[in-house]
Amino acid sequence: MPEFKTPLRDMKFLLHEVFDYDSHYATLPNGEEATPDVVDAILEESARFAESEIAPINQSGDEEGCKLEDGKVTTPKGFKEAYDTYRDSGWPSLSHPTEYGGQGLPMSLGLIKHEIMATANWSWSMYPGLSIGAMNTIFIHGTDEQKQKYLNPLVSGEWMGTMCLTEPQCGTDLGQVKTKAEPNGDGTFKITGTKIFISSGDHDMTDNIIHVVLARLPGAPEGTRGISLFIVPKMKINADGSVGESNNVTCGSLEKKMGIKASATCVMNFDGSEAVMLGPENKGMECMFTFMNTARIGTAIQGVAHSELSFQGALRYAKERRSMRSLSGKKEPEKPADALIYHADVRRMLLTQKAITEGGRAMLYHAAKFADLMATGDPEDYKQFDDKLGFLTPILKGFLTELGLESANHGMQVFGGHGYIREWGMEQIVRDARISTLYEGTTGIQALDLLGRKVIILSRGKAVPEYTGEILRFCGHHNPITGSRKRRVLRRYVTELSQLAVKWNYITGRILMAARTDRDAVGAAAYDFMMFSGYVTMGYFWAQMVAVAYDKLEHGGNETPEFYKAKIRTAEFYLDRILPRQMAHAEALTNGPRTLMSLDNDSFVFE
Amino acid sequence: MPEFKTPLRDMKFLLHEVFDYDSHYATLPNGEEATPDVVDAILEESARFAESEIAPINQSGDEEGCKLEDGKVTTPKGFKEAYDTYRDSGWPSLSHPTEYGGQGLPMSLGLIKHEIMATANWSWSMYPGLSIGAMNTIFIHGTDEQKQKYLNPLVSGEWMGTMCLTEPQCGTDLGQVKTKAEPNGDGTFKITGTKIFISSGDHDMTDNIIHVVLARLPGAPEGTRGISLFIVPKMKINADGSVGESNNVTCGSLEKKMGIKASATCVMNFDGSEAVMLGPENKGMECMFTFMNTARIGTAIQGVAHSELSFQGALRYAKERRSMRSLSGKKEPEKPADALIYHADVRRMLLTQKAITEGGRAMLYHAAKFADLMATGDPEDYKQFDDKLGFLTPILKGFLTELGLESANHGMQVFGGHGYIREWGMEQIVRDARISTLYEGTTGIQALDLLGRKVIILSRGKAVPEYTGEILRFCGHHNPITGSRKRRVLRRYVTELSQLAVKWNYITGRILMAARTDRDAVGAAAYDFMMFSGYVTMGYFWAQMVAVAYDKLEHGGNETPEFYKAKIRTAEFYLDRILPRQMAHAEALTNGPRTLMSLDNDSFVFE
Repeated sequence: MPEFKTPLRDMKFLLHEVFDYDSHYATLPNGEEATPDVVDAILEESARFAESEIAPINQSGDEEGCKLEDGKVTTPKGFKEAYDTYRDSGWPSLSHPTEYGGQGLPMSLGLIKHEIMATANWSWSMYPGLSIGAMNTIFIHGTDEQKQKYLNPLVSGEWMGTMCLTEPQCGTDLGQVKTKAEPNGDGTFKITGTKIFISSGDHDMTDNIIHVVLARLPGAPEGTRGISLFIVPKMKINADGSVGESNNVTCGSLEKKMGIKASATCVMNFDGSEAVMLGPENKGMECMFTFMNTARIGTAIQGVAHSELSFQGALRYAKERRSMRSLSGKKEPEKPADALIYHADVRRMLLTQKAITEGGRAMLYHAAKFADLMATGDPEDYKQFDDKLGFLTPILKGFLTELGLESANHGMQVFGGHGYIREWGMEQIVRDARISTLYEGTTGIQALDLLGRKVIILSRGKAVPEYTGEILRFCGHHNPITGSRKRRVLRRYVTELSQLAVKWNYITGRILMAARTDRDAVGAAAYDFMMFSGYVTMGYFWAQMVAVAYDKLEHGGNETPEFYKAKIRTAEFYLDRILPRQMAHAEALTNGPRTLMSLDNDSFVFE
Repeated sequence: MPEFKTPLRDMKFLLHEVFDYDSHYATLPNGEEATPDVVDAILEESARFAESEIAPINQSGDEEGCKLEDGKVTTPKGFKEAYDTYRDSGWPSLSHPTEYGGQGLPMSLGLIKHEIMATANWSWSMYPGLSIGAMNTIFIHGTDEQKQKYLNPLVSGEWMGTMCLTEPQCGTDLGQVKTKAEPNGDGTFKITGTKIFISSGDHDMTDNIIHVVLARLPGAPEGTRGISLFIVPKMKINADGSVGESNNVTCGSLEKKMGIKASATCVMNFDGSEAVMLGPENKGMECMFTFMNTARIGTAIQGVAHSELSFQGALRYAKERRSMRSLSGKKEPEKPADALIYHADVRRMLLTQKAITEGGRAMLYHAAKFADLMATGDPEDYKQFDDKLGFLTPILKGFLTELGLESANHGMQVFGGHGYIREWGMEQIVRDARISTLYEGTTGIQALDLLGRKVIILSRGKAVPEYTGEILRFCGHHNPITGSRKRRVLRRYVTELSQLAVKWNYITGRILMAARTDRDAVGAAAYDFMMFSGYVTMGYFWAQMVAVAYDKLEHGGNETPEFYKAKIRTAEFYLDRILPRQMAHAEALTNGPRTLMSLDNDSFVFE
């Protein structure tokens, strides 16, 4: 497994230089304490913990996996000890409300901390990561009593939480959920059913686990309108808050998976387990979305995390391993061959990884601001930020995990045959990354969420021109002739992005027109529309980074001009080599749904 | 693991209807016996063996893997038994010369048989598959004595062979090979050194293994000009041809890999092992290429094989699994949800798999004809066929394995979260497919072989206009207005392919110009050039298939018009949805090498 070094310089560049988090935090009700010094200290301490405590057990965790013995799940060697250190250092409570024992810092800081932990050891980070979804759901939908009872030990990290949605017969289609909730008549319920794919469903890290479970009340309407949410602890909770006897929540088996083997993926059996209802009756799906949006941004982080780790490994290997001579002449004549990094095709793969990682990180850090504003702003602004984040979330989750998987594969490819051998750790990154396009809504579901829900149903198409309006304002501002900044160096970015903003609007309009007569036009276009949106969005963020980099170079006063020059070079690479992919996606989707939909189900194969 | 059904209908379509193998075989010196009936019988018997004997041990082989105990490698349960049946049925000798005990049938039949076996169980198929490389190398470069001694038991399958190239310090860059060959003075040699990544380096399937080994004679020139080939048997061979005592060839360890776990990937130690030289002194690299071309086509088969198997699994699941309702209205109102296959985005993935599989297979079967002609044609024609096959080989290997991996991932994606769970077998296909872009020359090496060697060095750019000339002749023939066939239904294919043929020529010319002043222009363009070439070539083969399909539909007399209609639909899908990717590759490569090459090695990362 490649050694992990937290990319602190890049993170600080985004936080302090590109997105001005310093001012952002200063205006937040809960941002006062998040001064630049505190932010940097949190980054550095997160990095220290991640690099020294959990990165070293990433590969061993994969080799060892989780074990189920006597109905109890054991995590790999070192996982519980690392979690004890994490909890004792107060990390779980970082960005949770002070009224439940949290440190009350902005949510974005929690996400950035999570990115660092996740890059060091994705499987380990899933345990505290999934707990956040349960916490947020209880925080928003729970009664005061529920919050007091469950949130305090969750926030402190004494307990962890999970979300129990999927059942054997249904993943995405939660309307098919069969788990039953029977009222006891005293306001409590008995939950009976089987849930599958429950990450952290059981483990040895905490004494109790709080499950948030989707289930159906007797006589509830069919489909998604008859589903409610319940809080079901693994162990009953005594009146004094201490852990009591078993609540009949058991792990039936552990899934054998391609990767994230150190993360316990459980089949969970609830057998008359005591529960309380969370949120209103039959409104479980709506309440669920609170969790889903958090989880989807958490999964988007996975794209960047695996891309970063794979890039670090590939870069180090490309500098150390020597093979063949550069086509343009010997670069290391004293050595038997030139380092891989001198070969153009290896540079293509490394730069693709770099452009994906840094571009993706910029997209995430921008979105994280909306999460802060939604959590603390006034309710009137909430809708505005929810809309903005809602539009970006499927792009972040869908596009960044697809590119993260691509990047993980490039990193492995740089190693040649050695990449396929487990000891190097590069193939583990690919296996771990592979889940990211599947869970928390597949790529196809993200694409439908973006185009079908966010663009067409919720905004009647306006979400796109609103967003491209922002891009066009950026272009106008930096226009080399008419803009207020008159940036000649940004000419190419302004030209390309202006054209692509218009193209994005045009494509959206075409799909809207087609959808009037053929709903399949939406499903047929969704994937390519999301990928097109992702490439243009990432291009816009590269342009923003480049604008800052030129500023810094022009106004001097910085110690590392090479850092800014590298940003500019990488952005140019993105424009030259990655952004052209939008052409293929635009062309594919404007070709319409006919060839997708016209083949008979029975004509896919002939024996 | 999805059940495997040999796609016999598609194979027969290509052999009998598209490529007219019936006439091809009739004109081959060794094709007389390969009548259509015999060909079909071989396909059907191969299918029977593959489906009943080796497909059932594909997943168990992955779970069990190979074991090294007391210096001996054991293959997974059932592997040896299946091989015994294979050998006793005479399969190894199918397309080898009769003078060494072979059945003397054309090489293409051997490749197609191999495709069937490979789809059923790639790891198993590697054992007899790699033996072919050793056999071909000995057949072409061996002395009569060597052929008599080694080829007979290899052809019968009594023994197997390997190729030992890679060493710890070098994979692609074989000029760094250190393994020593010391002359004994009697025409024999002692080989000492360590080879890694030796597939089938040791196993329990045969009593002896014949290693073809790259090694360096004392005082040989440095680099690739000082490397010779040697035949090194695992066990010495007695004068009567029986297996004698150990030849100090031992397996030091087995690699732990991402996939192909049932294939033994060995570290092989040669410790003064007795050997004879194969081919001329210091010409080992040239002799090696004989093997490499075979191996590369064998690996191109892997792309199609994994794509086929993954497609079969995904298609079956998409018809059985129900989730959500189709956007255009309920398709199965009596069921709780519609089958996945009704959803546009699932169809996109399935059709992509289908287009890749069938398009790739067509490319392979076309190339296999050249292999036949090279093996049996007169020496004057050899160069012509070698050039044609040499141009196509890196496209087949590089492009088809990249697309095969993509297809395997689509198949897994159709399963949603279940695709990540091992019991379904879909993730194994991805892990098994992942090696195909790495071994036998990575994708980057194939790209350089195509653009740098085949196009620029060997043909001075002419290889492309020669090939596009063929495409343009096809377009001219089928032109709806001026062509001899005047095919209105082919209008779109003719239009697009004509434009792309011209674009391919233009791009090649641009790179040639750029390469005059900057050799890095070749390396920087190579990957995108190869992918562009692949997409256009596959488009050309889809057009050929469509031309035949329309013929069949127009002239009736066939029992399955749906088969031909499905071909046409799939071709249209390819044009609409896959071929547009050429735009991105063309744009990327014409942007030139600057942004690839200009970033300092030290500026890739800042801490």
